Amino acid sequence: MDRPEIILAPGPTPIPPQVLLAQGSPLVYHRGPGFGSIMREVTERLRLLYRTETADVLVMTSSGTGGLESAISNCFSPGDEVLVPVAGFFAERFKALAETFGLTVLTIDYEWGERIRPDEVAAALAEHPVKAVLLTQSETSTGVIQPIERLAKVANEAGAMVMVDVVSSLGAVPFEFDAWGIDVAVGGSQKALSASPGIAFVAISDRAWRATHEATNPRFYFDWATYKRFADLPDPENPWTPAISVMQGLQAALELYFQHGVDAAMARHRMLSRAVKEGAKALGLDLFGEGLDDNWTVTAIRSPESADADTISDTIRAEHGCVLAPGQGPLKGKVFRIGHFGYVSELDIIRGLAALEMTLESLGHPVKRGAAVAAAETVFMESRTP
Amino acid sequence: MDRPEIILAPGPTPIPPQVLLAQGSPLVYHRGPGFGSIMREVTERLRLLYRTETADVLVMTSSGTGGLESAISNCFSPGDEVLVPVAGFFAERFKALAETFGLTVLTIDYEWGERIRPDEVAAALAEHPVKAVLLTQSETSTGVIQPIERLAKVANEAGAMVMVDVVSSLGAVPFEFDAWGIDVAVGGSQKALSASPGIAFVAISDRAWRATHEATNPRFYFDWATYKRFADLPDPENPWTPAISVMQGLQAALELYFQHGVDAAMARHRMLSRAVKEGAKALGLDLFGEGLDDNWTVTAIRSPESADADTISDTIRAEHGCVLAPGQGPLKGKVFRIGHFGYVSELDIIRGLAALEMTLESLGHPVKRGAAVAAAETVFMESRTP
Repeated sequence: MDRPEIILAPGPTPIPPQVLLAQGSPLVYHRGPGFGSIMREVTERLRLLYRTETADVLVMTSSGTGGLESAISNCFSPGDEVLVPVAGFFAERFKALAETFGLTVLTIDYEWGERIRPDEVAAALAEHPVKAVLLTQSETSTGVIQPIERLAKVANEAGAMVMVDVVSSLGAVPFEFDAWGIDVAVGGSQKALSASPGIAFVAISDRAWRATHEATNPRFYFDWATYKRFADLPDPENPWTPAISVMQGLQAALELYFQHGVDAAMARHRMLSRAVKEGAKALGLDLFGEGLDDNWTVTAIRSPESADADTISDTIRAEHGCVLAPGQGPLKGKVFRIGHFGYVSELDIIRGLAALEMTLESLGHPVKRGAAVAAAETVFMESRTP
Repeated sequence: MDRPEIILAPGPTPIPPQVLLAQGSPLVYHRGPGFGSIMREVTERLRLLYRTETADVLVMTSSGTGGLESAISNCFSPGDEVLVPVAGFFAERFKALAETFGLTVLTIDYEWGERIRPDEVAAALAEHPVKAVLLTQSETSTGVIQPIERLAKVANEAGAMVMVDVVSSLGAVPFEFDAWGIDVAVGGSQKALSASPGIAFVAISDRAWRATHEATNPRFYFDWATYKRFADLPDPENPWTPAISVMQGLQAALELYFQHGVDAAMARHRMLSRAVKEGAKALGLDLFGEGLDDNWTVTAIRSPESADADTISDTIRAEHGCVLAPGQGPLKGKVFRIGHFGYVSELDIIRGLAALEMTLESLGHPVKRGAAVAAAETVFMESRTP
């Protein structure tokens, strides 16, 4: 009897049954009070997650990449200069997006897995002021959470706008739109919030709105001013027919998320992250990337000498129905990645680690059966100690 | 006991229970054989609907408008000249999109509700050749089906590419990508195919692909070459995380659609269209727009002297839970629109017409109770006569 695959990848994350039911319910027509109340509730809860009382939050039908494109096309003109510190796949993507729209992109290149150093960003900005700094909070390719608060501070001191890809971090790790001085932050439905993919959202500061007035890059589908006009209707709408079913699911997902509140979600992500890391170490595996204690979304694990990382993720999927993520770019074949955010429980992690134990043993890696599971149990038991 | 609203608007159309179940089922991870087989099946069936053996068909996460933007940004550079015959709201949108991306747009302006005349398009192209003609097959704002076959013929004779918005017509009325010489046709999941909104698809000719090589307009999220690279993988993928649940629903919707085949779906749309039109006439209402016999997606109905059209659509929604569509642009308050395509049955039309009868009576319009229903029944009974 085949079962659905167990998703332990860094997005889409598993979908709670309440969310599946909501997205499988009859559609709420997208113009009128019914959808208006979904829009209002989703937007209000996203503002709580963004920690903003001042920003507009717009929702659009696209992947997170579409939301990032909206930041570039709405705020910039060809020739505008931006700084992109690059330490992984998704920073590369943000850079490629900026280049596609004719921006002049300065980079600071780091090894993948490194943390971006605020003093180096400050030095670069002192030498060459730019209009904006483009950042990725959770660099999903490496698992590293970048120090956005300190990076935003140096950017603001240099008079640059701060745009952050929070697609895989919003709701998973702390983020403060207002307090940190962020101008644009782009999130997605399918990560820590455990809704289905298809909805991107973007928080926009007054300074970013002012930038849109001068920006000449063409945008129509992603034009923020158009979205804002429809969001401000008495019954808020989308300008184009939105992914209604995904919005219905997102509403249910946010209700679940807020049942126990933001702090509980963060604490859970932190605990699950520790369990995965201790489990991997108990199998003699090395963890990848800097700042492991702060990295609560996805853990990149180096493959042992005996096995290619892609072989591990292919085998665990084929043998146990567990979907991990392979390495990207220069990390292909060198690391595999386990997501531990969204609708993931202690016992979901346990079964993933058990599957990993059996997979490694079948690939000839020496494994003490139960060792990773025991290490994870220790993390869970300790988290119960008063 | 509140019920879900009955959608008789021209999209999103009602969603069959099989589609709701599919989109409410656990997500199929978007990289690997499971999603690959969904991609393959959906794409193959869309090619059958487009009636093409030569075109590439790409699917993207967006509304239909996003698909239309992809046509403009992938095929053109600022300054390129296109011709847009305008006879309604969606042709206006196609024009606005082209202007946003810097194209020089020539128009032939028609009254809303008119059919575009191929000889006038031929004359305009003879006087001023352009790179492409942008057309809207089902002008949803008026209900008119434009004569795409003949328009494409004169465009091809003048050496212009032919791009068609088939968002609300694909699967509802005849369309022939190869035989008519179409270059780009953009469809959507939420119309005749009765899936949820969130997926757009685009069929692309060789000539359109060649145009992309010279086109300098910026595109990233909607870049066709990127989509094609991922669609050509052994397990076809999307470059960005797609709206997986909507794709699962679209797969189920296409399976239902092909149960009885394309011809049966077209015949049903034609019959339902006639039933709505005869029903409206039996209530003394006037129909709007040219070419009513060919117009099988949505019927625009003029409101009687006694009532504003918006009052009719607001009242029928409030009193009976039936969602009709109001008039757009210059037709606001003058017409209301009933959609009769997708997952709509004879008895769905009957309940809509009964609700319309009661609504008009309550607004003071003289109504013979049951007259519209009787007229629709006559259409249905006659359609059974051998």
